[in-house]
Amino acid sequence: MSEPRRITAAVLIIGNEILSGRTHDVNLKFLGLELNKLGIQVREARVVPDIEDEIVDAVNQCRAKYNYVFTTGGIGPTHDDITADCIAKAFGQKLIHHPVAEKLLRERIAKMGNEVTEARLRMARTPEHAELLINEVSGAPGFKVDNVFVMAGIPRVMQAMFGAAVQFLERGVTLLSRTIGSFVAEGTIATALGLLQDDYPDIDIGSYPFYFDGKPGSNLVLRGPDQARIDEAGGRLHDLIIDLGGKPVEGGVEVPAPKDD
Amino acid sequence: MSEPRRITAAVLIIGNEILSGRTHDVNLKFLGLELNKLGIQVREARVVPDIEDEIVDAVNQCRAKYNYVFTTGGIGPTHDDITADCIAKAFGQKLIHHPVAEKLLRERIAKMGNEVTEARLRMARTPEHAELLINEVSGAPGFKVDNVFVMAGIPRVMQAMFGAAVQFLERGVTLLSRTIGSFVAEGTIATALGLLQDDYPDIDIGSYPFYFDGKPGSNLVLRGPDQARIDEAGGRLHDLIIDLGGKPVEGGVEVPAPKDD
Repeated sequence: MSEPRRITAAVLIIGNEILSGRTHDVNLKFLGLELNKLGIQVREARVVPDIEDEIVDAVNQCRAKYNYVFTTGGIGPTHDDITADCIAKAFGQKLIHHPVAEKLLRERIAKMGNEVTEARLRMARTPEHAELLINEVSGAPGFKVDNVFVMAGIPRVMQAMFGAAVQFLERGVTLLSRTIGSFVAEGTIATALGLLQDDYPDIDIGSYPFYFDGKPGSNLVLRGPDQARIDEAGGRLHDLIIDLGGKPVEGGVEVPAPKDD
Repeated sequence: MSEPRRITAAVLIIGNEILSGRTHDVNLKFLGLELNKLGIQVREARVVPDIEDEIVDAVNQCRAKYNYVFTTGGIGPTHDDITADCIAKAFGQKLIHHPVAEKLLRERIAKMGNEVTEARLRMARTPEHAELLINEVSGAPGFKVDNVFVMAGIPRVMQAMFGAAVQFLERGVTLLSRTIGSFVAEGTIATALGLLQDDYPDIDIGSYPFYFDGKPGSNLVLRGPDQARIDEAGGRLHDLIIDLGGKPVEGGVEVPAPKDD
């Protein structure tokens, strides 16, 4: 049996508003989950400010290192939307008004009864060799250049553009997972968990501690490509929690999300 | 008048669970807001997996580039908690059991009626020249080495460790902000907004579009160090929105957060 192919991706979240804490990113979580369904593992994410050199550097570093790069943000009509410019620069391509993107955009502008302005037409700009991510939600499509997919920051627009990106993506091995939680503290289970990890090098065992109702506990996640191996390791983990006096909860203990403001 | 000092920071979020989409990070938002209050601008954030070389590289790149680096995650007792090892390696320091951290940790373990295990004592490990971030919430402190602050991933523990980090931080110029939102679409205001930005190079004008109740609009954020200049630019922006047929909303139009699952 040949080794299943590992396909990796990076996510670049472009925007000062995420770094200042003003806006809370939700796109990374969406992309992490959806890409995993396709067998693509997100191996790095970066949040970069609206500064050309920073964006160009991050794009060039990540496109060399991972199979795919997905960017979100910075493709609207305002002066701070500079992602298209940066992608063109990163690839050494000319920035053009893409004829198909411009046609689609003019149709949308007409339909909305808006005026065609230079600012609105900015949204049709792409590097010269871009392919479009045409979708029903946005007037102007996202685009791809080589292995870099350029999408909007607004979640529902980004999700539509991602839908158009899927056809271009090679599938890899999907990681399956099983989560078992309990109110056994990490410190109590850690040694045995390390030994379990040693026995299953093909499974990535993560421990995610929490405090809930004043009690410490941990959700333990087994991730790997082979269901039978996960079942086997999961069975051992289940028994281990009972041996330590805990009550295993399949799917994990549900802990309320921390309030973020 | 001398130029006020710009102080910058990077945030490194360590953990596979953020990249897989399993866990939604809330620490970046907290750090972005709190650091800005101290006059420190977060200029980059990275999410890195639990892989030693990746963490070491990210720490070394960021500590050279920014005044401060804040890491979250990977300092618990389990096998996948490798942040302390990585920080020691990044600085070329020996990893030790820090005597004060170990004393505090043993006291906490005794108080909780738990057993002292090698796994639990892992949480007292720091690079040899670390200073501790002692706090009331966590049994084991976070720590700092030079300009790198190492904190837990659990939000309330991270926040307590950040409280202990504040004493070490130099203050810079705090950026003030004013937000004005409206249901004027970005494409309608973009040209005038670009001209306003040209007139106020000392102010960073961001445009954050939204769809709400089926209508497009945008929250416009003015950020800069000088209140009088922000008031002046804000006044012009206010009038501009009215000229374009909109109704300016000071503080911004409140848009419900997108659901993230």
